[in-house]
Amino acid sequence: MSEPRIPRLDLSETFQARYEAYRRRVEDGLERLLPAASRWPEPIHEAMRYAVFSGGKRLRPVLTLAACELAGGSVEAALPAACAVELVHTYSLVHDDLPAMDDDDMRRGRPTVHVAYDEATAILAGDALLTLAFTVLADPDGPLTPAVALRIAFELGTAAGTAGLIAGQVADLAAEGAAVDGRELERIHRHKTGALFRACARIGAIAAGAGPADVERLSRFADEFGLAFQITDDILDVVGDEAATGRPAGSDERRGKTTFASLYGVETARRLAVEAAQRAAAELEPFGARAGFLRDLAFFAVSRSG
Amino acid sequence: MSEPRIPRLDLSETFQARYEAYRRRVEDGLERLLPAASRWPEPIHEAMRYAVFSGGKRLRPVLTLAACELAGGSVEAALPAACAVELVHTYSLVHDDLPAMDDDDMRRGRPTVHVAYDEATAILAGDALLTLAFTVLADPDGPLTPAVALRIAFELGTAAGTAGLIAGQVADLAAEGAAVDGRELERIHRHKTGALFRACARIGAIAAGAGPADVERLSRFADEFGLAFQITDDILDVVGDEAATGRPAGSDERRGKTTFASLYGVETARRLAVEAAQRAAAELEPFGARAGFLRDLAFFAVSRSG
Repeated sequence: MSEPRIPRLDLSETFQARYEAYRRRVEDGLERLLPAASRWPEPIHEAMRYAVFSGGKRLRPVLTLAACELAGGSVEAALPAACAVELVHTYSLVHDDLPAMDDDDMRRGRPTVHVAYDEATAILAGDALLTLAFTVLADPDGPLTPAVALRIAFELGTAAGTAGLIAGQVADLAAEGAAVDGRELERIHRHKTGALFRACARIGAIAAGAGPADVERLSRFADEFGLAFQITDDILDVVGDEAATGRPAGSDERRGKTTFASLYGVETARRLAVEAAQRAAAELEPFGARAGFLRDLAFFAVSRSG
Repeated sequence: MSEPRIPRLDLSETFQARYEAYRRRVEDGLERLLPAASRWPEPIHEAMRYAVFSGGKRLRPVLTLAACELAGGSVEAALPAACAVELVHTYSLVHDDLPAMDDDDMRRGRPTVHVAYDEATAILAGDALLTLAFTVLADPDGPLTPAVALRIAFELGTAAGTAGLIAGQVADLAAEGAAVDGRELERIHRHKTGALFRACARIGAIAAGAGPADVERLSRFADEFGLAFQITDDILDVVGDEAATGRPAGSDERRGKTTFASLYGVETARRLAVEAAQRAAAELEPFGARAGFLRDLAFFAVSRSG
């Protein structure tokens, strides 16, 4: 079997412009949703903003918005939900970085929240971001009908809870220094990162009023997308440029963590990532040319440098 | 001004039987909502159950159910929401007890979650309980219309976030060892404990389909109820029996915390608590005799021993 070509980041200007347009909507949305840093009690609002506005790629909310548009909805319909997903993602990073968890001092090239503030503030800021995510979805002035908004809250809650993200984090911590095979590694990542990506695609589709077939198709896309993303993340931890990833290289290895890179080697892991992106793209075929952006997004996930 | 008589716990058998009936419904509801301890990943589900089934009084969900019935609704209508409130309350205790926060080793006579398990598990169990609370409210099989369920989620999110519970915890931590006057102390407690009690009463009323006048009346009841409860909590920290309260006496003082008891003295604090309970009861007058249970509940809040 020949090695598949690793795509270079030669994504079209159209892709980049559209990504940037989505990303700006998300930044604006988050800016409006986060309480002002001057609001009492100030330290928690400062810390929440520090965590949220830290130069993240906004990949999850971009996926949410793009899935909504592909399924026939508007950016407006999915924007609060997209922001809610990013709030959940951010809370999970703030708590994962805590000394009792992954004990990371740096993220995206800056001190993590518990280093910049203190541990109590980081715990509470994470709690507050998680709470805000659901409050945003329940906002009576939101763009969706109550039935659709509630369905989205259920998707997000299920993905973020102990059937999803939290399960992945528990299993990930338990696996440190333990022997982990490929099946267990996939299970960890299907929960730790996969569940939230899957929720993004589903939530976007649901916000658009899509039928079950499109919701399921976009779910399958997101499952492969999430796998491609995670394998690439593992590879970047080994070979990535610290300036681009914003974190010290080799932290997984120092921590005794089994990753796709350590289990299969970097070259095989690269192939697995590209194959997952290809399977993701294949799921989009029934949508035709309109799916170009999400297809490009899958290859972006595996060709990114940070 | 004469000292008001401190009511003894001579609450009627009717009150006690009804409290117990509500409490059992809540226990059953929580039992059904919490994932089995045998479900993967087991440690997180064990820790969640350890935190939730620890002999708590279930005062908040009982208030929610009673408010719903008083406003003309059924226990069935409010039960998931009542359980959601208890999940939020429990998460807040688990996180407040963490070493970086209040650093408490014991609660309700048992080791706190981070002592019984570990810090990472306690952080994640708290996160999971908070997430579950909103997931329960968004359950498509719930008893409420999506519009009512969403309104309740918004009430709970607002009360639990940085305009409520989290603000109170931030201000409480900031106040440790600092000079705090009566106004600031009330502000802390209006957020730290008051917001969630207020949400209980509002959520119960909303689940019943109550109009704005009843929702507001029950809100005002709950504000005074919460104040009466908190002042009593402060008094119990000074004079309480450790066997009844389940925690070491005098912990507030050792921590340099200003409380209603330290600021006003125990006797004046008792008077303030009873006066708040009386104001709470007065809010219920328009409901007539049907409000007997909630009136008794207000006096239970100030005459309890643990």
